[in-house]
Amino acid sequence: MAQNDRVATPTAVLLITCPDRPGLVAGVANFVTGHGGNILHADQHVDDAAGIFFQRVEFAVDGFGLTRDRIAPAFAAVAEPFGMQFRVAFSDETPRVAVLVSTAPHCLTDLLARWAAGELAADVRVVASNHPDHAATAAFYGVDYEYLPIVDGDRAAQETSLRAVLAAHDVDLVVLARYMQILSDEFVAAYPNRIINIHHSFLPAFVGARPYHQAHARGVKLIGVTAHYATADLDEGPIIEQDVVRVSHRDSVDDLVRKGRDLEKTVLARALRAHLDHRVLAYRNKTVVFT
Amino acid sequence: MAQNDRVATPTAVLLITCPDRPGLVAGVANFVTGHGGNILHADQHVDDAAGIFFQRVEFAVDGFGLTRDRIAPAFAAVAEPFGMQFRVAFSDETPRVAVLVSTAPHCLTDLLARWAAGELAADVRVVASNHPDHAATAAFYGVDYEYLPIVDGDRAAQETSLRAVLAAHDVDLVVLARYMQILSDEFVAAYPNRIINIHHSFLPAFVGARPYHQAHARGVKLIGVTAHYATADLDEGPIIEQDVVRVSHRDSVDDLVRKGRDLEKTVLARALRAHLDHRVLAYRNKTVVFT
Amino acid sequence: MAQNDRVATPTAVLLITCPDRPGLVAGVANFVTGHGGNILHADQHVDDAAGIFFQRVEFAVDGFGLTRDRIAPAFAAVAEPFGMQFRVAFSDETPRVAVLVSTAPHCLTDLLARWAAGELAADVRVVASNHPDHAATAAFYGVDYEYLPIVDGDRAAQETSLRAVLAAHDVDLVVLARYMQILSDEFVAAYPNRIINIHHSFLPAFVGARPYHQAHARGVKLIGVTAHYATADLDEGPIIEQDVVRVSHRDSVDDLVRKGRDLEKTVLARALRAHLDHRVLAYRNKTVVFT
Amino acid sequence: MAQNDRVATPTAVLLITCPDRPGLVAGVANFVTGHGGNILHADQHVDDAAGIFFQRVEFAVDGFGLTRDRIAPAFAAVAEPFGMQFRVAFSDETPRVAVLVSTAPHCLTDLLARWAAGELAADVRVVASNHPDHAATAAFYGVDYEYLPIVDGDRAAQETSLRAVLAAHDVDLVVLARYMQILSDEFVAAYPNRIINIHHSFLPAFVGARPYHQAHARGVKLIGVTAHYATADLDEGPIIEQDVVRVSHRDSVDDLVRKGRDLEKTVLARALRAHLDHRVLAYRNKTVVFT
Repeated sequence: MAQNDRVATPTAVLLITCPDRPGLVAGVANFVTGHGGNILHADQHVDDAAGIFFQRVEFAVDGFGLTRDRIAPAFAAVAEPFGMQFRVAFSDETPRVAVLVSTAPHCLTDLLARWAAGELAADVRVVASNHPDHAATAAFYGVDYEYLPIVDGDRAAQETSLRAVLAAHDVDLVVLARYMQILSDEFVAAYPNRIINIHHSFLPAFVGARPYHQAHARGVKLIGVTAHYATADLDEGPIIEQDVVRVSHRDSVDDLVRKGRDLEKTVLARALRAHLDHRVLAYRNKTVVFT
Repeated sequence: MAQNDRVATPTAVLLITCPDRPGLVAGVANFVTGHGGNILHADQHVDDAAGIFFQRVEFAVDGFGLTRDRIAPAFAAVAEPFGMQFRVAFSDETPRVAVLVSTAPHCLTDLLARWAAGELAADVRVVASNHPDHAATAAFYGVDYEYLPIVDGDRAAQETSLRAVLAAHDVDLVVLARYMQILSDEFVAAYPNRIINIHHSFLPAFVGARPYHQAHARGVKLIGVTAHYATADLDEGPIIEQDVVRVSHRDSVDDLVRKGRDLEKTVLARALRAHLDHRVLAYRNKTVVFT
Repeated sequence: MAQNDRVATPTAVLLITCPDRPGLVAGVANFVTGHGGNILHADQHVDDAAGIFFQRVEFAVDGFGLTRDRIAPAFAAVAEPFGMQFRVAFSDETPRVAVLVSTAPHCLTDLLARWAAGELAADVRVVASNHPDHAATAAFYGVDYEYLPIVDGDRAAQETSLRAVLAAHDVDLVVLARYMQILSDEFVAAYPNRIINIHHSFLPAFVGARPYHQAHARGVKLIGVTAHYATADLDEGPIIEQDVVRVSHRDSVDDLVRKGRDLEKTVLARALRAHLDHRVLAYRNKTVVFT
Repeated sequence: MAQNDRVATPTAVLLITCPDRPGLVAGVANFVTGHGGNILHADQHVDDAAGIFFQRVEFAVDGFGLTRDRIAPAFAAVAEPFGMQFRVAFSDETPRVAVLVSTAPHCLTDLLARWAAGELAADVRVVASNHPDHAATAAFYGVDYEYLPIVDGDRAAQETSLRAVLAAHDVDLVVLARYMQILSDEFVAAYPNRIINIHHSFLPAFVGARPYHQAHARGVKLIGVTAHYATADLDEGPIIEQDVVRVSHRDSVDDLVRKGRDLEKTVLARALRAHLDHRVLAYRNKTVVFT
């Protein structure tokens, strides 16, 4: 299993969302300090219009006055009067990840190479695809590969198989690394804010088929990519990360597609890393991404 | 009048569009060379899909074997067999420009300051506005200011006045520097590819009122700006330049608007400069912008 | 005086630097909460290697249990046991600013236009220059202009006059908006981390005269600009902000200079805004800039 | 062997450098047209200060009036009177490439994945390393791997072995994909403008050991990467491509290194692609890179 290069000593991360009101920061800080902990990083944000408070607090596990399993129950007493929703994560307990891919290899290869290099605090358990193309790549990186073809056009049956694979691996996070099949609403609902997707974005947007051809016909000077959590409205979920690259009249449709691929790799990797580091808080179809 | 800092010695620029076929580059080059000219810059582009050839050729006026007024007639003999559309411009014959503005001053001030600093090869003749706000700014830069209010909601009458002002100044180019009035189709048709507009652009696009509020609600990570030639479909004309700036959950709607303003200044200035340097060729609702 | 568009209701900003140790966040939060305050924004950072803690805490003045003049004395009791260095600023008490400029107008004009548009929470008191060029610009924006020529090469005498002007205006912050005179060590020492300078930056760096010519000769593909606090080693102080712009073989030396000017305006404005919003903490020749 | 996705139909590329003088463009265009060729792309550039003309002309091989082997001899008659240096390349005759690598895998993996995806018009023949680490990666992509350790500190002997490997593969281009050994002047001289290297770049530059640590200590807000041709002064050769990425006080030294890795992959790939597409002309320690 790949190593994460970031975490020298294990830390606990407390992620909090609640109505904004006085005393929140003090309440959380006193909890950590009161148990002998030292806050290594703390970020908070208030959405003024919505009146919502967000916080991410990271502290060392070693020397903390509560064992791991007792942190959440103890914090519940702090959270309750403030109406806090919260979760606790540990830097050395890496999420189990499934990568879904169709034919295009670039996001998959990039992601696996980063993981092998220790850049991603993940436990990549399985690569699943409706195509057989990437079996050798998965094997090279020591990850299971599940070829799940759509037989006789029965998409529902294939999705059932896919969900069984994810369940068998007890997957925490699904990464759509250019997976070109529509997921059912039930599937998406089963992994709320735990499916990361990537897709092209343009200014202006182009609706319909072959968006890169439309962008080329329109003579855009920038093409973009958006990474987001999948929702029932597949490409309209909370945005995690976006970026663009400059293009010109010199660029053919193939050039746009190639530049788009490069961007997809980078933007997906950044979004995935933010998620794995427990820096993303989603709410109301948008996100807070602490840096 | 402001000086252009780019042109030490006057040059002629030949801008050509025609169906692609062999011999075009040689035909143009032989014309210039045959009259004793030296090509200082030459750029060409072929839109493979459309089968269209574009060229920009710049050569020194001094020492050329034809006087200025005889260049176009002489080149017509080259152009005719190739079916070329062409125009000839001279670097020291600067376009007469009108700047239209409503209340927001940032694009106007930036443009006038650049012009005063000699960055723009333009003859800025007049600033026109449906508001009185910018009279002092125009006066400071030594440019006429025409306050053209909309009286009793009569937009047509105001546009008639505006067109009279542009005609009186024999304007070659209209710059919409955050001018918030809709121009009639007739107005736009009177200045084909000679009205430059600027507007916000987002990924995804937001339709309807208050786009910055929508972008904020959607939690976008980038906001963008597009400069384009105005067409009857006002914000859908050929794109000249685009750029984006990064935003985050830290940015309020006001922050987005402010960052958008900065971007509008920069993108408008780049588009305007490209136009004034005769580097933009528009066709089929898109552009070739030579660098 | 220009208005700041950001601050609807006045806030207090507490800026803290101290050795890192447990209980800091709780201590500060308890101080604010204990006096009935609500933390609107809080950012902290730990320089792990140096063992230094940094915090910026912003809370509403209205309704806080201490009057403005009693906040710092009361907080001193919290700060003392932690060895905190701190200061308190108020969003509606804008720093008095002097802008120093030589001949190039672009940074000055951009800064004054932003200020007039309400983008900068500053009280711009005076523009001072060793050239007479910008008197009309200053007058247009309603700011005093002090023309302080260097007479008979006596730089020390000119600096003495300059310091008298700054003292007369009780200036808090000095902005070097392309001011091409070397400041004495005594001058710089009198305004620690309160002089913002801007200069070109390249990859690689070019030492000696005419850096843009050197960059052009070297064929760089990017040019950059750095904004920093001035120190005795003038261009080597703590970096506040940097950015680059792409260039190519098409760009002449004049083009590089022009693109550099655009970048200087933007980078200086961002650095100045960060300073005025009390988001910059300088230490050990570097900065923390909260976003 | 990987396929290049760009070239539908084979083209010839003529790369020309010569003293600037009238008639150059016409002379070249007449050569192509005179042999029945159609110019698909043509770019030229004049370095005004140096008085040097550069041109890249691309035309279809099929239907051209000269066979491939006769193009260069025939063009020599055009070139001679103008004092042109030139070379002819064909889009379907891909350069033989060796990739040199030490321990860091990121550039190697990215490059091989791009090659396998058909993005690079190259014939990657061999990966050579002073470490055994990448044998499996090379095997996965079907490329020979040569492990060439430095035995008893004898760098010269290792370089002799390396040169033998390159000779055996008749290599046209050497890519230093994070190869951490110094190459001798003789080695570099044997591959003029045919060794591409990549290294970090900062504003300001940092001399000496551990530059990322120095950059972190200095609090830079940007880190950069430069791809260039290797010369005897290893990191000072003609720059092909540069880019930067934004960093902040939040980034540890490890974060800087990781962000630098991402940039190295991208910048190296862009530089390599420009070289393989015959778009780079080096002269006087700088480059023209046509787009």
